[in-house]
Formats: sequence, C-alpha cells, structure tokens
Amino acid sequence: MNETTITAEPNTPFIDIVREFEATPAQVFRAWTDPEIVPLWLGPSGMSMDLIEYNVTDGGRYHYVHRDDAGEYVFRGVFHAVVPNERIVQTFQFDGWPTEVSLETLTFEDLGGRTRVHKHSVFLSVASRDAMVESGMERGVLDSMTRLDNVLAS
Amino acid sequence: MNETTITAEPNTPFIDIVREFEATPAQVFRAWTDPEIVPLWLGPSGMSMDLIEYNVTDGGRYHYVHRDDAGEYVFRGVFHAVVPNERIVQTFQFDGWPTEVSLETLTFEDLGGRTRVHKHSVFLSVASRDAMVESGMERGVLDSMTRLDNVLAS
Repeated sequence: MNETTITAEPNTPFIDIVREFEATPAQVFRAWTDPEIVPLWLGPSGMSMDLIEYNVTDGGRYHYVHRDDAGEYVFRGVFHAVVPNERIVQTFQFDGWPTEVSLETLTFEDLGGRTRVHKHSVFLSVASRDAMVESGMERGVLDSMTRLDNVLAS
Repeated sequence: MNETTITAEPNTPFIDIVREFEATPAQVFRAWTDPEIVPLWLGPSGMSMDLIEYNVTDGGRYHYVHRDDAGEYVFRGVFHAVVPNERIVQTFQFDGWPTEVSLETLTFEDLGGRTRVHKHSVFLSVASRDAMVESGMERGVLDSMTRLDNVLAS
C-alpha cells in the first residue's frame, strides 16, 4: 500500500498531505469529485456520510454530514477554482468551529498512469493549524486514503 | 487622519492591515457590508466600481468589477462566517489569477465609540503573498481607508 505523508512544519499555518494512487489522474479526479463516489471513501471508517451537496465547479459548494454513535459533524466549503484532472482550490469549514475556515489546493500529478495527489491547506493562524493537527485529523486522512484505494481498485 | 498600517512579515503567508475609525463598530460594520455604501469607498480612487452581488451573510457571495481607462478587474468571494458588528470571515479571488485565492478575517474592535478594524489575510504560499504585496495593493488599501473615512463623516 502506498504511504500517506502528512507534514505540518512548526510555526507555519500549513498542512501538506501527499499520497500516490495506482490509477490515472482522470480516475482519481473522478473519484474525488463525483457525488456518487465521494461518500464511499471520504472520512474515517466507522462513520456514515450524508452528502447534501457536492457541486465541483467554479463557485460550486459542498455540504456533508459525518455521523457516528457520538453525534454528527457538519462540513461545508466552496470550490473557488476547478481545473479538471489537475487542480481544485476550495475552502473547508466545520460547523462546530465556523470562524476557523481553511483554504486548500489539491493537485493531481500524472506519474505516467499513476497519480500523486497533494493537498496543501492553509489556516488563518499557526494556532488554528495546530488545533486541527491535534483534533485527530490523522486517523480520518489515513482511513480516507485506504478507502479511496479500495474504491479505485474496484 | 488615522494611520493605516500594513504588515507583511518576511517568510509568512500573512498580510495584516489595521486602521482606526472615528465611528462605532455598528457604523463601520454597516459601511463595510451595505451594498449601497460599499461602492462609495472600496477600491483605488479613480476607478469606478460595479457591484454585482454583495450578500454579507453566512454562505453569501460577493462579485464586483473595478474599471479604469486601462481595463476592468473582476473580484469575487464568499462570506463564510458573519458575526454582525464584530467579525467576518471571507475569501478573496481576482479573476485574472483564479487559483491564487486568499482567506481573510475582519474584526471590528470597539474602542469606546471609536473602532479598530483589523483585516488579517492568509495566502496559499509565501510566494503568493509576496506577489500580492508587489502588485501595488498598498495604494488601493490607503485610498479605500481615506474614502471610507469620508463616507463615515458624511
């Protein structure tokens, strides 16, 4: 299985996640953006996902709810720029912490039939970034990447 | 006239603009958010402003065009969180450079009848922040703050 690297350099507001997939950029991009496919892999395993809106186009929005026995977690964002199979610029907002928005760029790099996805996130402050790292995001990221591997293989 | 400070520390992706006004937070917030008032002050003097959308509410959008003899400049963004008279979290996007979005928090601090406005912006990279600083944004900021002073005085 390919490794997922999560980097959060001290004293910066950035988080960088890099993962390679055994599929083309077009295949990975589709799995990342098709509202029929996204709920199959996005989020920690053991949570259900209710996708209310997922309109990957310039100015489009997303809105989804993760649920487990402990409660529900609502996420929203806006797609600011979409370059099919190459790049997405989007925001990320958790309803429980609505003023701590972050901004993300996703790039899908063609490695010759394989794909390197790089998700670069920037937060409003180093403290806000640190809080996200400490929130336990790592488990959700690793679970999502493994689940996406399985979706791409099927 | 109150001073406008613009701070862009080296090797960070942040720009901080601080300005005080001789008006209450409610007055400054209204001038900052009312679509009838915003075109009277936002942008460099000598440019016209065509405000197409300016819906300052959670999830609302803005869209405006600045014009001068050299051409037109289209800007868009989304209001992610709005706390009336206190705080706005919004994005900022120039159509000429659509993947270089930035994320901004505006705070309106009550100084006892006077108001300190702090605009904190974060960019996707230090290089993107540097490019914004070098684009000549300072003139637009200083002009806008002077024009807003005049609007608040009238």
